[in-house]
Amino acid sequence: MKTPEPEEERSLHMDRASTSTVTRLSSYLRLLRELEAEDLETISSKLLAERTGVTSAQVRKDLSVFGNFGRRGLGYNVHRLRDEIREILGLHHTWRVGLVGAGNLGQALYSYEGFGRQGFPIEAVFDTDPDKVGSSWNGLEIKHFEEFTRVARRKPFEIVILAVPGEVAQEVVDTVVAEGTRGILNFASAKLDVPPGVAVREVDLSIAMESLSFALSR
Amino acid sequence: MKTPEPEEERSLHMDRASTSTVTRLSSYLRLLRELEAEDLETISSKLLAERTGVTSAQVRKDLSVFGNFGRRGLGYNVHRLRDEIREILGLHHTWRVGLVGAGNLGQALYSYEGFGRQGFPIEAVFDTDPDKVGSSWNGLEIKHFEEFTRVARRKPFEIVILAVPGEVAQEVVDTVVAEGTRGILNFASAKLDVPPGVAVREVDLSIAMESLSFALSR
Repeated sequence: MKTPEPEEERSLHMDRASTSTVTRLSSYLRLLRELEAEDLETISSKLLAERTGVTSAQVRKDLSVFGNFGRRGLGYNVHRLRDEIREILGLHHTWRVGLVGAGNLGQALYSYEGFGRQGFPIEAVFDTDPDKVGSSWNGLEIKHFEEFTRVARRKPFEIVILAVPGEVAQEVVDTVVAEGTRGILNFASAKLDVPPGVAVREVDLSIAMESLSFALSR
Repeated sequence: MKTPEPEEERSLHMDRASTSTVTRLSSYLRLLRELEAEDLETISSKLLAERTGVTSAQVRKDLSVFGNFGRRGLGYNVHRLRDEIREILGLHHTWRVGLVGAGNLGQALYSYEGFGRQGFPIEAVFDTDPDKVGSSWNGLEIKHFEEFTRVARRKPFEIVILAVPGEVAQEVVDTVVAEGTRGILNFASAKLDVPPGVAVREVDLSIAMESLSFALSR
């Protein structure tokens, strides 16, 4: 606080806010889907807050960033709010997703129903292992990664899921980014170097473990 | 806001703060490990903030929750802060972890090096599939889940990783909780019902995807 740099502080704060807001929007969306299944038509910010574990002030603040969905005293319309959040998160679009890496993790991710159901169906799988290339998962043939460029030039993969060993991760990323991929879901234990405009999200399983460890230590 | 319930608001806020604080502590810890590898001895809250994408006010606030590690103008001692955060997160303790489910996901999790390295080595694997039970992964024999109770009674599993189909998840949880497990890392697509004092953390891969989708929609 001795050398305050308000500009920088503010912009860092905005980035941070944006990331956590998106995570909370995801959790509101999950709840709204449940409420729809229960045929509930409206929900108050108070209940939305209670069921997702944040304050109602936070809920109102998050939703106000994107416009005014609620009416004072009437709460939010469940269908409309769900649609608005889906729109904000870019989920009206079905993304073209490629998976690189057909090992145990790749297979587990391919079987994960959540991706397809939520607008991220895996449309192609690539590997370099001769034992895997040419075999099929539910009728989808595993292609050699050498074919990635040819396939992507017909139609780019907007998102690539990276389930390869850390040693080859950067090489794979360089190839897919060169072919137009702008989003990487990274399961490789490697820091990735990407050009501006490419988003990387890591799934670090140890963080969930550390949160458990913290809870069990109380 | 028409019927303010300050008590409840505050306690929800505390829960929320606690969850996000723990996640940030995990990310400070990752950075401190990197800095140690670079032989850096001290770090300012400003740099800690910059490198983890939060404000320095947030860093100071997070660390002040647990005590005063830094000295004004001198920054934080990297080793000491790392040790303190490890202590706070319960990572000085090596947790006894069991894995239930030896499918593709289970195998991928078993191969995930991060768990062992960070104090969560998987000590036993259980499944019910006769093709899997009795076979070995790196010398560790996969046991039938019927043996869980016998094994846990010798020494309870503090944490269980759940990599089973959603349909059997609750049944598995009831068994492991009855045998003293207090932490569940849940990969099953099922809402779990657990008694008070048992912590559950979900790993929802779609949330990372939605964050990518949001970034690509800008």
